[in-house]
Amino acid sequence: MGAKLDRLKEILGEVADLNSAAGLLSWDQQTYMPEGGSQARGQHLATLGKLAHSKATSDEVGKLLEDLKAEYANADTGSDEAALVRVAARDYDKAVRVPAEFVAEQAIVSTAAFEAWTQARAKSDFRIFLPHLEKVLALVRKYISFFPPADHPYDTLLDDYEPGMKTAEVQAIFSALRPKQVELIRAIAARPQVNDKFLLRKYDEHKVWAFSADITRTFGYDWSRGRMDKAPHPFETSFSVNDVRITNRFEADKPLTTIFSAMHESGHAMYEQGVNPSYERTSLAHGASLGVHESQSRMWENLVGRSLPFWEYFYPKLKKAFPSHLDGVGLKSFYKAINKVEPSLIRVNADEATYNLHIMLRLELEIAMVEGKVDLNVLPEIWKDRMREYVGVVPPNDALGVLQDVHWSYGSIGYFSTYALGNLISAQLWERVTRDVRGLDDQIRKGKFEGLLNWLRENVHRHGRKYEPQDLVLKATGSKITAEPYIRYLTSKYSDIYGL
Amino acid sequence: MGAKLDRLKEILGEVADLNSAAGLLSWDQQTYMPEGGSQARGQHLATLGKLAHSKATSDEVGKLLEDLKAEYANADTGSDEAALVRVAARDYDKAVRVPAEFVAEQAIVSTAAFEAWTQARAKSDFRIFLPHLEKVLALVRKYISFFPPADHPYDTLLDDYEPGMKTAEVQAIFSALRPKQVELIRAIAARPQVNDKFLLRKYDEHKVWAFSADITRTFGYDWSRGRMDKAPHPFETSFSVNDVRITNRFEADKPLTTIFSAMHESGHAMYEQGVNPSYERTSLAHGASLGVHESQSRMWENLVGRSLPFWEYFYPKLKKAFPSHLDGVGLKSFYKAINKVEPSLIRVNADEATYNLHIMLRLELEIAMVEGKVDLNVLPEIWKDRMREYVGVVPPNDALGVLQDVHWSYGSIGYFSTYALGNLISAQLWERVTRDVRGLDDQIRKGKFEGLLNWLRENVHRHGRKYEPQDLVLKATGSKITAEPYIRYLTSKYSDIYGL
Repeated sequence: MGAKLDRLKEILGEVADLNSAAGLLSWDQQTYMPEGGSQARGQHLATLGKLAHSKATSDEVGKLLEDLKAEYANADTGSDEAALVRVAARDYDKAVRVPAEFVAEQAIVSTAAFEAWTQARAKSDFRIFLPHLEKVLALVRKYISFFPPADHPYDTLLDDYEPGMKTAEVQAIFSALRPKQVELIRAIAARPQVNDKFLLRKYDEHKVWAFSADITRTFGYDWSRGRMDKAPHPFETSFSVNDVRITNRFEADKPLTTIFSAMHESGHAMYEQGVNPSYERTSLAHGASLGVHESQSRMWENLVGRSLPFWEYFYPKLKKAFPSHLDGVGLKSFYKAINKVEPSLIRVNADEATYNLHIMLRLELEIAMVEGKVDLNVLPEIWKDRMREYVGVVPPNDALGVLQDVHWSYGSIGYFSTYALGNLISAQLWERVTRDVRGLDDQIRKGKFEGLLNWLRENVHRHGRKYEPQDLVLKATGSKITAEPYIRYLTSKYSDIYGL
Repeated sequence: MGAKLDRLKEILGEVADLNSAAGLLSWDQQTYMPEGGSQARGQHLATLGKLAHSKATSDEVGKLLEDLKAEYANADTGSDEAALVRVAARDYDKAVRVPAEFVAEQAIVSTAAFEAWTQARAKSDFRIFLPHLEKVLALVRKYISFFPPADHPYDTLLDDYEPGMKTAEVQAIFSALRPKQVELIRAIAARPQVNDKFLLRKYDEHKVWAFSADITRTFGYDWSRGRMDKAPHPFETSFSVNDVRITNRFEADKPLTTIFSAMHESGHAMYEQGVNPSYERTSLAHGASLGVHESQSRMWENLVGRSLPFWEYFYPKLKKAFPSHLDGVGLKSFYKAINKVEPSLIRVNADEATYNLHIMLRLELEIAMVEGKVDLNVLPEIWKDRMREYVGVVPPNDALGVLQDVHWSYGSIGYFSTYALGNLISAQLWERVTRDVRGLDDQIRKGKFEGLLNWLRENVHRHGRKYEPQDLVLKATGSKITAEPYIRYLTSKYSDIYGL
């Protein structure tokens, strides 16, 4: 019994090593690799991926898992060993269902689709992308066909990102959320807008970078087990619980977004740094799901990083670093500026109040596409109608509308909802943590984050992939994922800021 | 026939990818990895190494090589395919002879030996290291026993670094060299010493770094396929012909060594960048041997980078970058300073005139150790005697004597001579290139290096590992490796500088 589990762990450990190596190669590709290195890097990554896949899907692994599932069928399901067998079996079952030829076909289709999308967006012409989207969608349906029928075909896609989560659950949550959020932004739109001009002045890149790094250190992101490098897009990546890196960028026209990106990515990074070290190189390493991961990044970025208590501590420091930029700008004005609500066309630039509406629009379209209930020809028009209805603005062209996101071009359907789920989970955890950790606001006002971080470590981080997201949230908060805490959070925050 | 070669290339391509990935992991370990990442990194490297080894030594590879060797037995030995089969078979034969248990044992012994060496050097006490050196040497003899008897047991070790090279050849070359070099430094010692105080002033790190980078660009090191990062020790590493990186360091008390290290490492890097791209992911990729590699780094560092024509072009630029540091220092004074000869105790700090003597001392001791002809107890005394005889200085203790180099602690015996061979080859190639490329000195005076680089590309770089070092040198210069050109080079250079 022990021997079989040991052998499984040995093989999966090697798979994890190959994936970690690939992770470093990808990180390097985004940070330091000279341009000439790109073709060979693709080759190296392909070989590592192929070896990892063939190891992970070997007959030996299948046989070991068969035996271990039987052995652990009656074991304490709460034990790490039982969880490991369960999660490893889930990964294995998924990996073996998808034929290698399909993966190869998908790579070819999505490479062409990505090219077409780039062109289509540049020319703002959806028709260039349309035939490729059709092919992508056909492959997505084929992918679904490799799996046993679910309650809803979209379940299969969602499960890759949010294990165990059902489309019906997400729809129910979002149905509760949408009218409230639409109502909120209509109320805000009726109020005078806040001034944020002073955020857009010319800030020194190195000072902003250093200030951002300091915040992540104060949060508790351990720099002896991490670092922050420059990359075209901010992201977090980890090669072990003791080497969890983030990247960031500086955009001269939006200088302070570097600070919020650092908070966001360090939220992801602290999650990875907090996973039980004994899960290292097993199927239980890393985060429970994309949604739970996003709950951590959003919590540190928004519930902490855009809160008044946080800036009571950090604003004097920011003013010291940039005295002339913020001269005469009081704390409350700064706080309002970083929380300004402005219904806009582009998801990635959306504020907290409107962000989820962008997501819901995409989720509804994705579900309809998978169901075959939407004529792809009219997608741009549907997009415009929904934007008007939900967000209150209408894209003047496809580039600012249906073509704005890259995800569909490489077949990532089922992914968007995790962004919105992350927001909901963050507020749900927050309601609980503010009850469990006494005087949390006061701690934050003093720049102390151990109380918060320890709670997250204990209730979320350390569990890694042991629990499915719904179970993890239930364990941590006493309820499955629900929209109410997030609605309460937004309403209270914006009522204060906009005097609703 | 084609199918077997293709299959061999496919497998060896994957081995090359694993090795490239491991190379990047090691580079990261030396440059950017946070300290916490070290344990996991060791694990990742172990897994990649194990997979690469098991792939490279599989029965399938053995069988393919058996068949291909027979097929190519009568083929044109100059063809790339024949060379590939020959070199791949050489690598395979070496790899399969060494049992995995031996490699594991060696890892354990050398880890302990390295620890002991660190302590021994700190306490300057050879007796701490002695029992470990005995174990290391026993393993080295065991290693030799895995191979068929050679003319000399040391041949087996040397062959790992200089394929095809014989101990007797190296001894013959060094016997011709030693008396001449000893004679030269005695003559220099009788002359007044040159002043190099202005080299040791406080130079700005960033300016020195930028100046160094500019030189490598002017040489022809392609930065779109490379980069220079900070690391504890300068080195060159490549993950493909299009991603060849160097590292460098800045030492405040020896500020301008950064410039010479950049020249040195870019010499290695231009070699790798110049290998025939069609050898990528095959056994013919990378350099012919450590000695040939070192000939390239030494040539750019010394024959070019410490030459008068070079500084005729670059010295005005250096003075512009550091006007106050070099005020009143003429070109000739600067040239003499960077070529100052100072017999000293430590190999890594040795100048061109004395460097090889340090190497010869080690080579003689290594050969005697392998032959079992030296009592390890008296190694420190022999060291002192030879230093007095060859270099003219005597280490006051073991730390500055027999314990100064790390190599023996991890069993790298057979390696040192490649440093000296590199020097010899560099001068030998130089004599030829100055005949083949008309007006090379004048080109260098104008900061033009294409003539030199193109000659090296054509005669050395592009061949990769296709030829053994002696054959490559013979092809390029019309003679096997010989000491005369280097003796002529040193004599002429130092006669001028020291007025001999």
